[in-house]
Amino acid sequence: MEDFSGYPIHAPIDYSFAAPNSLLSFLSVDSTALENQIDELSTFSDTPAPSVTRILYTEKDVLARRCALLLVFTLCGLILRYHKENACFHGIDWGMGICKLQYIKNLMGLSGLSVREDAVGNIFGRWDGYEPDLAPVATGSHIDAIPYSGKYDGVVGVLGAIEAINVLKRSGFKPKRSLEVVLFTSEEPTRFGISCLGSRLLAGSEALAEALKTTVDAQNISFLEAARSAGYAKEQDDISSVFLKEGSYSAFLELHIEQGPILEAEGLSIGIVTAIAAPASLKVDFEGNGGHAGAVLMPNRNDAGLAAAELALDVEKHVLGSGSIDTVGTVGILELHPGAINSIPSKSHVEIDTRDIDEKRRNDVIEKIHQSATTIASRRRVRLSEFKIVNQDPPALSDKSVIEAMEATLKELNLTHKMMISRAYHDSLFMARVSPMGMLFIPCYKGYSHKPEEYASSHNIGNGVKVLALTLAKLSLK
Amino acid sequence: MEDFSGYPIHAPIDYSFAAPNSLLSFLSVDSTALENQIDELSTFSDTPAPSVTRILYTEKDVLARRCALLLVFTLCGLILRYHKENACFHGIDWGMGICKLQYIKNLMGLSGLSVREDAVGNIFGRWDGYEPDLAPVATGSHIDAIPYSGKYDGVVGVLGAIEAINVLKRSGFKPKRSLEVVLFTSEEPTRFGISCLGSRLLAGSEALAEALKTTVDAQNISFLEAARSAGYAKEQDDISSVFLKEGSYSAFLELHIEQGPILEAEGLSIGIVTAIAAPASLKVDFEGNGGHAGAVLMPNRNDAGLAAAELALDVEKHVLGSGSIDTVGTVGILELHPGAINSIPSKSHVEIDTRDIDEKRRNDVIEKIHQSATTIASRRRVRLSEFKIVNQDPPALSDKSVIEAMEATLKELNLTHKMMISRAYHDSLFMARVSPMGMLFIPCYKGYSHKPEEYASSHNIGNGVKVLALTLAKLSLK
Repeated sequence: MEDFSGYPIHAPIDYSFAAPNSLLSFLSVDSTALENQIDELSTFSDTPAPSVTRILYTEKDVLARRCALLLVFTLCGLILRYHKENACFHGIDWGMGICKLQYIKNLMGLSGLSVREDAVGNIFGRWDGYEPDLAPVATGSHIDAIPYSGKYDGVVGVLGAIEAINVLKRSGFKPKRSLEVVLFTSEEPTRFGISCLGSRLLAGSEALAEALKTTVDAQNISFLEAARSAGYAKEQDDISSVFLKEGSYSAFLELHIEQGPILEAEGLSIGIVTAIAAPASLKVDFEGNGGHAGAVLMPNRNDAGLAAAELALDVEKHVLGSGSIDTVGTVGILELHPGAINSIPSKSHVEIDTRDIDEKRRNDVIEKIHQSATTIASRRRVRLSEFKIVNQDPPALSDKSVIEAMEATLKELNLTHKMMISRAYHDSLFMARVSPMGMLFIPCYKGYSHKPEEYASSHNIGNGVKVLALTLAKLSLK
Repeated sequence: MEDFSGYPIHAPIDYSFAAPNSLLSFLSVDSTALENQIDELSTFSDTPAPSVTRILYTEKDVLARRCALLLVFTLCGLILRYHKENACFHGIDWGMGICKLQYIKNLMGLSGLSVREDAVGNIFGRWDGYEPDLAPVATGSHIDAIPYSGKYDGVVGVLGAIEAINVLKRSGFKPKRSLEVVLFTSEEPTRFGISCLGSRLLAGSEALAEALKTTVDAQNISFLEAARSAGYAKEQDDISSVFLKEGSYSAFLELHIEQGPILEAEGLSIGIVTAIAAPASLKVDFEGNGGHAGAVLMPNRNDAGLAAAELALDVEKHVLGSGSIDTVGTVGILELHPGAINSIPSKSHVEIDTRDIDEKRRNDVIEKIHQSATTIASRRRVRLSEFKIVNQDPPALSDKSVIEAMEATLKELNLTHKMMISRAYHDSLFMARVSPMGMLFIPCYKGYSHKPEEYASSHNIGNGVKVLALTLAKLSLK
């Protein structure tokens, strides 16, 4: 129980949709601490700074969930400084500080949240409300990072959510509905080719639970084996225990960097997401005869690499031909086999991402990409050995009540904002299937994301945390 | 000294350009042994059979040069069978057979050749002639294999050369000029991006000797470090000690599979190479801003991956536009960074191989590829951060005297043949710079090469070895 003068325990003021000046004036974000945490978390990476690479269930992912090495070094540093200042240097061994403290879970604990994890490593930190039987309000995001990306994508929505809880606690606020911070497992598809793995399962995807029994990564390590090595999925192969019941949460709200340039360009503080574009991903394989790059004359070739190159350009053509600026399509992976300069590619592998706020228009693009793949294969006499639609999700709409709570908050905080579409997708896309959903964006530098130059200012992050905190307070009291 | 009835030592019959019936009738190739050796050597591979992957200075390459594990297992097998047949099974430990016998060098030794190696691992096995001060006649090829390739490319010209020496020894022939079998280091460019590394150095490439001081592989391992780990380049960084003086050999002759379909299709036994096409290789890098595959709208992108795809298709266009069937061009390597499905490629790397029998026409293609790269970079607003011509070699012509020796041999052996161009290039391209050069091709299945389906029949290999042996004999006596 918190104890703060002026607020009687179990009898809070009704903040709903009109925060009193007393709460507003106590809403203070510790931006320095939050910035340090973002920097610290970014060091749990498989590639050098400023890039971040944190892949599901790898050592760095597990450490980021669990081990706060830097905290310990900070402690060592303090001790060392103390000894130095007291002219008594004992040659402390800096290496000895390695321990099993938990990073994200430790921060949740320090904020007084009770922590649990599910079978795939979604992590939940709960602040019990004074009516704990009511469905809680949840907030959260992810901390995994694709190769050579930045330190804000997802992270702002996890560390920011924990800080939002701290903000409310420091203000003396008492939630009616419990508040829950969620760290979602593997929003990025890097390791197993499945995006939003944790939230898809929370949303009850039977198909995914079934598929994960046999899913393997590029090194042929099974999902279950990898999960177990990280300390999850201990007791069962069936991970349907992860599914949330509908009604588990009264609302879900995610704070995220925009990953686009609009807010910054228009000088706005906050974006309220009204809908999340419908994503789809495809895998395509071509096979030809390969052969020696010198010896096989051009008319005798069926080059699987050129088929892939042509398909990549056709993806761009079909996307541009959709007639809407909202259609996007990307070939982020294109691999050639055997991958030698003097060998005609005998196999190629292409992975395609395409999205639109209009599901039908997005599906039309997928159909055209399929036609292209077939035509290219036929014309180049290569075999289209795979054309697989890995996922083809519908778009999600934000919930009216969550949007209204955000709008009211922004008015009270006197922050500028605009309503916008999320073209990137997020765990919110899947949380919308089991809970009223909302998202709020903060500006980021030039819209950069998924690369080391990704950046959001401490000021903008602070605004986002404040809006998140006050909106969670409102939703908690509903 | 060999001792064979009917041939007086030091007083050989003059076989030059007219092999006597007596030698012809003693020319017998041990095709079974040769086939077994080809099979055994193919097991020194980093990928599963039937594919072969043997990369410069890796463990498998070093073992293939040195360790005959299979020979030892064969010996163990014989001992085991002996014990079994004698109803006395002693449970021999098959694992104990691991030893440091040499494979290629061991075979050279078994054939009575004196073996030496140079600073980069070119291996020379010499059969001294009775006029050992005359420049020797050399023959040889390579045993490195690009990823997932086959077991005949290069190997036939090394194991076949050792067998040709055996053929001559069994026949009682005595060479006047010494005969030398050469195993060239790294004909394939896989590890360091440099093709025909060993023969380029033998031919005295100062530029290469200088470049190798700072060359690194994709794992940032330096050439010199790799060479040392394989037991070479022990004492100096400067590997110009490898250079051959002009006149070191009186002739060089390489036996090779055709790597093209012509001989098989026309039902011919042997191809006499009159010229080797002029090869060139290029490395191209594009850089763009990358970004999130969902969030960045199409007009705001500068996708380095699509620039690479477009360049690959332009390579094909310019090659087809050369006006000659003899122009070929290949994009065997195309890599995207960061290589994630939901990330717009911020970097791409392309490696291009182009060849022609006409050097000017090949150079025109390179110029057009350069223009394309520049135009694509400008139009797509990506940066052309590298356009490097790694090598741009002239073609090589076979020497008239070597061709005539082969023609005479084929007439005596009554084998069909045709004069042909080698579109693939070989160590012979560089040996032609320091020695009169010739090459002879044998048919291979459908012209397949650089893939597991590569195949040459024992019969055709036997013909090739017989032609090689008799031609070497002729050249030795000149």
